[in-house]
Amino acid sequence: MIYSMKDPIRVGIVGGGQLGKMLAMEAKRLSMKVNVLDSSDDCPASMLADELIVAGFNDADAMNRLAEMSDVLTYEIELADANILEGIERRGHKVRPPAHALRIVQDKFVQKHTLNKSSIPVADFFPVKGVDDVHSLAKSIGYPVILKTKRGGYDGRGNLLVKGYDDSMNDRIERFVDGRGGWNSVYVERFINFLKEISVIVARNSKGEVVTYPVAENIHDDGILDTSIVPARIPASLADKARRIAMDVIQTLDGIGVFSVEMFVARNYNASSSYYDGNNSADEDGYSILVNEVAPRVHNTGHYSIEACNVSQFEQHIRAILDLPLAEPRMVCNAAVMMNILGDSRVNGYYAIDGIEEIMSMGARLHIYGKRSNKDRRKLGHITLLGDDLDDTLRKMMLIKSKLRLVAV
Amino acid sequence: MIYSMKDPIRVGIVGGGQLGKMLAMEAKRLSMKVNVLDSSDDCPASMLADELIVAGFNDADAMNRLAEMSDVLTYEIELADANILEGIERRGHKVRPPAHALRIVQDKFVQKHTLNKSSIPVADFFPVKGVDDVHSLAKSIGYPVILKTKRGGYDGRGNLLVKGYDDSMNDRIERFVDGRGGWNSVYVERFINFLKEISVIVARNSKGEVVTYPVAENIHDDGILDTSIVPARIPASLADKARRIAMDVIQTLDGIGVFSVEMFVARNYNASSSYYDGNNSADEDGYSILVNEVAPRVHNTGHYSIEACNVSQFEQHIRAILDLPLAEPRMVCNAAVMMNILGDSRVNGYYAIDGIEEIMSMGARLHIYGKRSNKDRRKLGHITLLGDDLDDTLRKMMLIKSKLRLVAV
Repeated sequence: MIYSMKDPIRVGIVGGGQLGKMLAMEAKRLSMKVNVLDSSDDCPASMLADELIVAGFNDADAMNRLAEMSDVLTYEIELADANILEGIERRGHKVRPPAHALRIVQDKFVQKHTLNKSSIPVADFFPVKGVDDVHSLAKSIGYPVILKTKRGGYDGRGNLLVKGYDDSMNDRIERFVDGRGGWNSVYVERFINFLKEISVIVARNSKGEVVTYPVAENIHDDGILDTSIVPARIPASLADKARRIAMDVIQTLDGIGVFSVEMFVARNYNASSSYYDGNNSADEDGYSILVNEVAPRVHNTGHYSIEACNVSQFEQHIRAILDLPLAEPRMVCNAAVMMNILGDSRVNGYYAIDGIEEIMSMGARLHIYGKRSNKDRRKLGHITLLGDDLDDTLRKMMLIKSKLRLVAV
Repeated sequence: MIYSMKDPIRVGIVGGGQLGKMLAMEAKRLSMKVNVLDSSDDCPASMLADELIVAGFNDADAMNRLAEMSDVLTYEIELADANILEGIERRGHKVRPPAHALRIVQDKFVQKHTLNKSSIPVADFFPVKGVDDVHSLAKSIGYPVILKTKRGGYDGRGNLLVKGYDDSMNDRIERFVDGRGGWNSVYVERFINFLKEISVIVARNSKGEVVTYPVAENIHDDGILDTSIVPARIPASLADKARRIAMDVIQTLDGIGVFSVEMFVARNYNASSSYYDGNNSADEDGYSILVNEVAPRVHNTGHYSIEACNVSQFEQHIRAILDLPLAEPRMVCNAAVMMNILGDSRVNGYYAIDGIEEIMSMGARLHIYGKRSNKDRRKLGHITLLGDDLDDTLRKMMLIKSKLRLVAV
């Protein structure tokens, strides 16, 4: 590939949040042109974009304009309209990951079905037609079960835990289903009493090269990622398995670019045979790994890679979507901990971050996304700490957490 | 320090070249505002700047405008006018490094004198009044000697090697001196038959905190940096000494921000006592370290720190000029090699870079500055390779060099 400074490569990104911003930074390191589409003219990626199209992801004209001014179109958010992207592909533009991959991922029911068909282990999942269906299922496989929306739904939204049979529960079920578009728009998953939540960042280019990142162990707080710990504190054999599963996932979905595969580590999980043939993936110690969520994009659980790896998930994504060779990811330290800086419900609107000195004096690396105002639990930035010893690094991060404060201004 | 998203910190950078661009990237990671002054509207840093003032460094009005719109003023090029910066300081603006530090550094004769007075080892240096002066000096300390311009002069320009006494040499001397503003504008340095050229990146903040980076070994090609090898292949005792000297330099010059200190490693160098009291710094094996050049800014020889260290020189500079705590630099790998991508005299104007795939497939990290057109030996980008073994990494870099081609487009 001849990289021309007369006609620099133009990368179009659907979505201008922090993921788009961090992708743009890698593109700018190579002096590429970056075009961004977002509904907000103040989005984080706007500070780096050459062109910013202010529009919604379902605005076909705007999306086409983005494609026209770019050599490749990618997205940092999976809410992009797959039909529009397919139309863009038909007009000869490069979309990475391809629209057909996005289409499958966007519908979690179809996604689980597709993975399951390729013998990739997922939690048991079932279609349901009404409240009674939910309960007869739960009586068969056990409460609780999770009622999930097929489309939309991230950071824990779009899930309803069904704990038992009672009138108030049923009211909540009906309201949940109504709000999501009816019973065809939801499905049920078996509740997994997981030991840990882990994830793997995986990248694939159009030549079929695939690489996986070290396994991250993720701690969520009320549905939103709080902390990622790398490497995950699991046996090496499980870590290898998780990385192989991630490779299978991206190959099955024909993904190009970076994907994130979030998984559960469970013990003594026996796949139910009541609907689909489950893929019982327990090892000799009874541990199973089950795919929970797939995102066809760079992901919060991969931010650690900026400091902790030889090549970040963002650079890897740029390489992958441009058909450049991928780099085998390696950690450059023994341990890494990433912590999200989330909006505080007590501080609304304009905010300031206090405690910067303490964070920096402890050797941590601070990322602030540039969102002007705070909303409860909004992702405002993150902090990464590298170290030799994982426990020690975690302890330091807890100390950092105690020093960090959001204040209203 | 309360970091407010309502009023983000505004960093003003004099100079919009690749150094300014890489500083801007670190400022943008923290969502700060970046204002840049440069004579070219197409400069590398312009792709990240919030405001770009197109003007020369000696344009007092423009410089003042930059100061007015920024919370701190810094520079990526030492050609900034120290008088203008002093005026800006008097009007209450923060300039980092301070104008008085820049003033000393800008005049190499004054600089050497200042360092020498603080017992920091430099090559012997002498004032000269005419051609005869040069030769009588050379007869006393030995040919060759180097005639140097006191101000301006970087990447090897501003030096004339005086090899002996003959008419053509004297003609060249006269033309050199004329071109630089007369005999008051030049001085003579003793030629150092160095073993190696090394450098240390050092940072200091206004609280007096000082940190130094690992020593780099630098290979120049006709006055311009070609390759940096880290850590330098010198005994640990010499490396420690080099880092201590760098600390002394920045403290003596009252520098704030990142400075680079380039040094010679020489053997059996005996300081001459004919003009100044030399600081003979030879160790028991006869090795001396002599300060060659000081730059009051981030530097080409520190680019390796982006991948190879826990905190890059660019982030460190941002921390230092904002009075944030510095981070103790550590290498995150055993070895690092950085190689410049220089313009090729056979390719003028618009250019393209061929060989990107080979470079990336070998795990190297590519930086392309975004200069639209090529001039001979212009710094267009750089490549960094990390590794476990230095020799192995060097070999790989030589292979990469052979695959890289500039082509005209």
